[in-house]
Amino acid sequence: MKPSIPKGTRDFLPAEVRRRDYIFDVIRKHFRRFGYQPIETPVMENLSTLTGKYGEEGDKLLFKVLNNGDFLGKANAEDLAAKDSGKVLSSISKRGLRYDLTVPFARYVVMHQNDLAFPFKRYAIMPVWRADRPQKGRYQEFYQCDADVVGSDSLLNEAELTQLLDGVFHELGLKAVIRLNNRKILAGLAEIAGMADNMMDMTIAIDKLDKIGWDKVAEELTNRGAAAGALEVIKSFLDANSLESVAPLLATSEVGKQGIAELQEVFDLVASQPTNNRIEFDVTLARGLNYYTGAIWEVAVDTDAPGQENIKMGSIAGGGRYADLTAIFGMKDMPGVGISFGAERIYDVLEELDAFPADASEDLQYLILCLDEETLHHGFGLVSRLRARGVHVDLYPKAAKMKKMMKYADQRGVPKVVIIGSREAESGEYSVKTMASGEQETMREEEL
Amino acid sequence: MKPSIPKGTRDFLPAEVRRRDYIFDVIRKHFRRFGYQPIETPVMENLSTLTGKYGEEGDKLLFKVLNNGDFLGKANAEDLAAKDSGKVLSSISKRGLRYDLTVPFARYVVMHQNDLAFPFKRYAIMPVWRADRPQKGRYQEFYQCDADVVGSDSLLNEAELTQLLDGVFHELGLKAVIRLNNRKILAGLAEIAGMADNMMDMTIAIDKLDKIGWDKVAEELTNRGAAAGALEVIKSFLDANSLESVAPLLATSEVGKQGIAELQEVFDLVASQPTNNRIEFDVTLARGLNYYTGAIWEVAVDTDAPGQENIKMGSIAGGGRYADLTAIFGMKDMPGVGISFGAERIYDVLEELDAFPADASEDLQYLILCLDEETLHHGFGLVSRLRARGVHVDLYPKAAKMKKMMKYADQRGVPKVVIIGSREAESGEYSVKTMASGEQETMREEEL
Repeated sequence: MKPSIPKGTRDFLPAEVRRRDYIFDVIRKHFRRFGYQPIETPVMENLSTLTGKYGEEGDKLLFKVLNNGDFLGKANAEDLAAKDSGKVLSSISKRGLRYDLTVPFARYVVMHQNDLAFPFKRYAIMPVWRADRPQKGRYQEFYQCDADVVGSDSLLNEAELTQLLDGVFHELGLKAVIRLNNRKILAGLAEIAGMADNMMDMTIAIDKLDKIGWDKVAEELTNRGAAAGALEVIKSFLDANSLESVAPLLATSEVGKQGIAELQEVFDLVASQPTNNRIEFDVTLARGLNYYTGAIWEVAVDTDAPGQENIKMGSIAGGGRYADLTAIFGMKDMPGVGISFGAERIYDVLEELDAFPADASEDLQYLILCLDEETLHHGFGLVSRLRARGVHVDLYPKAAKMKKMMKYADQRGVPKVVIIGSREAESGEYSVKTMASGEQETMREEEL
Repeated sequence: MKPSIPKGTRDFLPAEVRRRDYIFDVIRKHFRRFGYQPIETPVMENLSTLTGKYGEEGDKLLFKVLNNGDFLGKANAEDLAAKDSGKVLSSISKRGLRYDLTVPFARYVVMHQNDLAFPFKRYAIMPVWRADRPQKGRYQEFYQCDADVVGSDSLLNEAELTQLLDGVFHELGLKAVIRLNNRKILAGLAEIAGMADNMMDMTIAIDKLDKIGWDKVAEELTNRGAAAGALEVIKSFLDANSLESVAPLLATSEVGKQGIAELQEVFDLVASQPTNNRIEFDVTLARGLNYYTGAIWEVAVDTDAPGQENIKMGSIAGGGRYADLTAIFGMKDMPGVGISFGAERIYDVLEELDAFPADASEDLQYLILCLDEETLHHGFGLVSRLRARGVHVDLYPKAAKMKKMMKYADQRGVPKVVIIGSREAESGEYSVKTMASGEQETMREEEL
């Protein structure tokens, strides 16, 4: 029987793990520098925590864990006979795999509120699970990298998170466009367009602008209840490409004006310090998640930047402010704001751009090869002493044909091999070969 | 509704994550230095990969993931009516959570054999899941930290892994006893005691020696089929406390002599280099896992070491050599050897000894406090520039009462706070207070 892994899951080879860890390490470094603290929550959560938090579609995509032991014992016989999966579920499964890092974070804040200092800034870089149909670039098990601050409504947080996004992509060597909007601006638009009661319908349609164009958006808006005059208002709004040109359109909306003022404050703060990427207002940015109430971010690869013209990739990071993260668990007045990096997409982009640092794939510095059995003990002494000095070094564990050992060195991707025969063992003058160039030099132990 | 997490799982507070990461980082550092490479396998494996690999008891402890969608659709109506959980299982679940890192590693080696260079040295630090009854110190979700090398039968690997165990505990500041034995020595004993056919019975009984004493072990051996003379042979064997004294007892057993020779070679190699912990032969060491065929390790806290006398903790690391890891998946001749660190137990021991480094709990260097709203922008500029220089620093995001902000600084565990009022903002001379001593000094931005 040939072994396999579930569809939508992946194995990672060492070079892949190292490149992914490089991305995680850069993100983690910035999270920490900005004062975000690591937390960890279990992979398995109670289904009562997860169910109903991601909409009907999300509930279907939750992976459920079967109760242990005689799981059918408590199931209702009639439901079983009817093969009613929906009704039987609650009696045979009470745990599920986490679907994102946000709901477990909300649960965590509620459960540990007495142990936390607010504003509480946390980060987490952990896998999540979704039973989506697997397809290219979409997996059932994938990582999320989130930073959130809760218990503060200060706009300094928005400015700081914008800097964090800027700093991470700069260090990754990727030019990004960081787009910002504010849900209050969209709420203002809904007000003046007479769509305050179906604002979600409006934002869902607007969010598709760059994919389907204005004509289709207008059609969808009409279908979703936009009145005749509304389309014109919305069109002129979407054509505005700066806060200054949007502001007059929202002059009659209190919430709209507030959104403008908030975003202006964030832009002013960010502009007061050096940044490395394009940071832009985008009035068409809506984001699907309906719990956002203030600032929203979406980051994409800057295809105007030299060398990045051909990158076709959607959002590589995003985020937003929410009024009350923990209300779903009965704890009120816990406003927050957070961002999330799409590590898998960033990986694909860096790979396409060949932008991983050379040492992100292998960190072994030397491989020691012994030409005969007698020198193996000498090799063992050498590898032991080098490691004690902190050198990353390995020893091919027996004497084999040179060709075979060099092939192994090549497969391991090690930059240099140290070759020991009886002469070298006696003299302590080792022959060191650079794999890439074939160049050979003589070195003593202390030079390695 | 009060939220909760499943029994046997845990949330980790920031200080706990950091202290655990400290342990993982030390272990990872040594794994890498010794040439072990990181791999990652999915949390969900096919049940066909996991089932039958851990014995009947293990199968019961596997967490099974329910198939998505209408999972009852394919279930047999009669089995459902009979509520026969065992028979229904295979039709409603085809995935499970990994139970250890060894079986997924074997599967990985088989699936990726053409992409790997042998000897293949891999490490993994990842959680595993077992539906054990939760109790103090035993969780359903916990980490394993494994290093294995496969495709090599060289005893240099055993020597190297002993050094690795030694190095990790040394760096953690823990004195350990590293006990070694060899399954071939036990096989030799089984031969001369006439128990070759029930060697497992014999080793299981012997393994309990330090817990239940010789009389009970003798009783169990008799119950498990030890002949009258066998007990005496086994007793004299267990009383031997060095390789030299065991060797003559095994003079008539080929496999026994081989075990002695192998272990002697490993001890000689290890003794040829400096080490930091007690490294001992223990003829009573058997280990429960029946796939071990050569060297076996078990590491415990050295309770003879000063300050460690009161530590009550079982094995904190262990491992062994196996003849054929991948045979369960149809790939032959893949001998290997590996070790595993019990990170959760190491955590408990370090905590009990108060042996975590001071900076393992919080890595924020400064917290900036602004005395009034006007200086917040100044504070934002300062925090931005310090972070750009790589300093780990945070800004309390609004002007609040000094007492409130100091309480927050205390809860965050930050060593120093930087206090900015309008005078400090103007002069650029900041008041810096050391939290532990209360000492106050004046510093300029470049001194921070």
